[in-house]
Amino acid sequence: MEKNREYRKLCKIFRKIAFLKSTASLLAWDQETNMPDSGQKHRADQISTVTAIAHSMLVDEEIGQMIARLYEQAGDMAPYSDLSVNLREWKRSHDQAVRLPEGLVKELSYEKVLAHGAWVKARTASDFSLFEPHLVRLVELSRKKAIYLGFEENMYDALLDIYEPDERSANIEALFARLVPGLKEILSSILSKGSGGSKIAGNFPIDSQKVLAKLMATRIGYDFSAGRLDTVVHPFSTRIGPGDVRITTRWNEKDFTEAIFGVLHEAGHGLYSQNLPAEAYGTPLGDSVSLGIHESQSRLYENILGRSMEFWEYFLPVAKGIFPVALKDMDLVGFVQAINRVQPSFIRVEADEVTYNLHIFLRFQLEKEIINGQIEVHDIPARWNELFEDIFDMKVPDDSRGCLQDVHWSGAAFGYFPTYTLGNIYSAMIFDAALKDMPGLREDFKKGEFGRLLSWLREKIYAQGQRYRSRQLVEEITGSPPDCQCFLGYLQKKAELLFGI
Amino acid sequence: MEKNREYRKLCKIFRKIAFLKSTASLLAWDQETNMPDSGQKHRADQISTVTAIAHSMLVDEEIGQMIARLYEQAGDMAPYSDLSVNLREWKRSHDQAVRLPEGLVKELSYEKVLAHGAWVKARTASDFSLFEPHLVRLVELSRKKAIYLGFEENMYDALLDIYEPDERSANIEALFARLVPGLKEILSSILSKGSGGSKIAGNFPIDSQKVLAKLMATRIGYDFSAGRLDTVVHPFSTRIGPGDVRITTRWNEKDFTEAIFGVLHEAGHGLYSQNLPAEAYGTPLGDSVSLGIHESQSRLYENILGRSMEFWEYFLPVAKGIFPVALKDMDLVGFVQAINRVQPSFIRVEADEVTYNLHIFLRFQLEKEIINGQIEVHDIPARWNELFEDIFDMKVPDDSRGCLQDVHWSGAAFGYFPTYTLGNIYSAMIFDAALKDMPGLREDFKKGEFGRLLSWLREKIYAQGQRYRSRQLVEEITGSPPDCQCFLGYLQKKAELLFGI
Repeated sequence: MEKNREYRKLCKIFRKIAFLKSTASLLAWDQETNMPDSGQKHRADQISTVTAIAHSMLVDEEIGQMIARLYEQAGDMAPYSDLSVNLREWKRSHDQAVRLPEGLVKELSYEKVLAHGAWVKARTASDFSLFEPHLVRLVELSRKKAIYLGFEENMYDALLDIYEPDERSANIEALFARLVPGLKEILSSILSKGSGGSKIAGNFPIDSQKVLAKLMATRIGYDFSAGRLDTVVHPFSTRIGPGDVRITTRWNEKDFTEAIFGVLHEAGHGLYSQNLPAEAYGTPLGDSVSLGIHESQSRLYENILGRSMEFWEYFLPVAKGIFPVALKDMDLVGFVQAINRVQPSFIRVEADEVTYNLHIFLRFQLEKEIINGQIEVHDIPARWNELFEDIFDMKVPDDSRGCLQDVHWSGAAFGYFPTYTLGNIYSAMIFDAALKDMPGLREDFKKGEFGRLLSWLREKIYAQGQRYRSRQLVEEITGSPPDCQCFLGYLQKKAELLFGI
Repeated sequence: MEKNREYRKLCKIFRKIAFLKSTASLLAWDQETNMPDSGQKHRADQISTVTAIAHSMLVDEEIGQMIARLYEQAGDMAPYSDLSVNLREWKRSHDQAVRLPEGLVKELSYEKVLAHGAWVKARTASDFSLFEPHLVRLVELSRKKAIYLGFEENMYDALLDIYEPDERSANIEALFARLVPGLKEILSSILSKGSGGSKIAGNFPIDSQKVLAKLMATRIGYDFSAGRLDTVVHPFSTRIGPGDVRITTRWNEKDFTEAIFGVLHEAGHGLYSQNLPAEAYGTPLGDSVSLGIHESQSRLYENILGRSMEFWEYFLPVAKGIFPVALKDMDLVGFVQAINRVQPSFIRVEADEVTYNLHIFLRFQLEKEIINGQIEVHDIPARWNELFEDIFDMKVPDDSRGCLQDVHWSGAAFGYFPTYTLGNIYSAMIFDAALKDMPGLREDFKKGEFGRLLSWLREKIYAQGQRYRSRQLVEEITGSPPDCQCFLGYLQKKAELLFGI
């Protein structure tokens, strides 16, 4: 059927849609990195125009009929054959898209651009009121979107499903029900011994940090001839297309590890994106599975690899070469303790591995309440602070360190946060499987060799495109269904090794 | 008729087309400034997809019928009313576009992206053969394009008309017939006295050059909150949209004036673009007249203003503050002589005001031969060198200093070069008119005040959008039809003032 005329036509149309979507990605990347302030309104017009055209191509009735016809014909084929996978995902995309009126899609895309600008200002001024009217609008539109998309129990599920296909909030609640007590237990045993490790502090010129960051990213396999690293307020990575996958970071002159772990995180995403099968670009087999799986890669490189003793056995001498003064008296164990320092704090992106998912738990709770209509946008700051105190027993000092800290809601990305926790859980399971397949793997890292790990990930995950749904992919790789036990075990073992818990 | 439903529909559609075209502009800007090497192929796909969609919207039959209907109804209206102008230009755009098959448009757009990459490599290696197959393709497609567009005497005219509506090569030939002897005469009288002025040389750190360049651009009125300055191989300016007009330059650590005049040039374009009426964006009344008029602004700011004694009476002390060592012994007259140094050279973009249009004359001659099929692409280097020797009496040492030096042909921009000469001619006429209207204008410059000039240009040119064709606009402003006498007079007067000719 690969030679089927209609199938080839669909491939062509979906490639065209991908070119348009990737154009919107560039418009968005430029907005964060380069666009002058006064360009906001026009950029909103550009993005909404391009997005609306892609949407109208996707909802085209003829496309829908072609997909339906081929999907039916393919009924008897192996469910994970290339063709079945593409048809399954095309059907999902088309079906979801037809549920959304073009006007809503365009309006959301337009409002998001404006809201983003307002959020940047609100965050800087720590003034929720600057962002509030935009957020009211985005919540209203997102709720409409959820209704159009449809859901069974929970309006929130319709949005979660966008980022993590087939995932449901009931499953996530079940995960958190076991994860949160486990994290709190590990946290309190570490805190009972102090905060575990001191902070890195010194003077780290940003140009030197850039050298180190690029060197590390290159070493783990990120290809700068098909990518670049830029400076932004809220770091992200984006795949413009095959051969063009960009990462971003921010810099702190007093602590080089902030940028380094940021870069390792984004480079983890970047490795996934750079190693997706280019020949399948524009079809589901050339695309990533879900945000949860994407995040498993960023967290694997940032945390499991990047905060390990083995990794720094190789890289600490390199870093000392670059920062000879600031790191002069730093020994390996002290350094690895420092970068694994556990300490409750207000900012998610600065959180350690133990508290990180507690931050996500808060957002997950709050998002459900917002989308399910249990609270008003106006009450978000108060509710955030209340939940924060419940979980962390700390008072939030201002909204820039509270509900204004994250970019996500300014992009109407409700349902996105839980994918971070899924990513953490998956990363531990996937790395365990890699260790089982390659017992000497940790020895590679001590020598600064990361090629075997990348090849394994490429084969198991990157080359698969969207062949499997995330839970299924994890089970294919690890032999077990997703569960938080492996991740908790990983944290427990690290606490024992580093802090003698 | 402004309230006419069809007219409003056309406004909306043409705004949408403008959003798409401006998206293609961003894709192109990014390609020059940021895109990683391996992104070439995908970028070609993106640009050609977006361009083809814009094209298909423009050629839509229903649009054509609406335009034709309204155009006919508007027959009796004032020919330069807002409505008549928009309809006239829409008709022109639509009529031209329907002549071009979508396949050709897409192919050209795609081949241009590939050719650009090849040209960069060829120019670096000074190896025409790397570029030749791409150029063969582009010439072939451009000739097809000219045939589809239609022409009376000269195939080349069809392409010239794209950049300079209603201009014809016979007119340009007539201009050059008077201009070239005039230039040669001025040139030889300057050269007979030596080369007129010494060169600037010293050590000018690039970061400091950036400070000066941004300061100057800001001072003449370029708004950085609606723009930015980046580094590229071949400088250009681009209007992404209202509130987002970007300029670029390259830097030479040994001579800061290269970048400074580059920035003044691009900022001149930028001023035009930033001051087009934003409320008319997407319609002809919100767009620039032609490349010739655009170039008149860049050359006015770069040369007539930027190389004048008055300008540097204000800016030389500023530059000395920034480069205290390198400019220590520089006096005003010596400096202004140096930046007006006349000396035949190989590179157009480094040429002085006297020889510049001789470079254009060469390209104009050669382009006509290429497009009219009088020579083969393979013979371009030899023919270039022959023409160069005819005009300058110098032997071209290699193709990177010969036919590979300019970016234009890699973008299939045949017919573009003569607009540079038109720009020079227009700039002298326009500035003369400004002086007549504001006799004390030169005194402003000595005080670093450029607001009156900008306001005058805004009123006379920028606010007009495409109300008039270029020759007509020049006549409206100056009272005379375009002619090279004013420009030659300007050069002659400068030669007298600076070199005692």
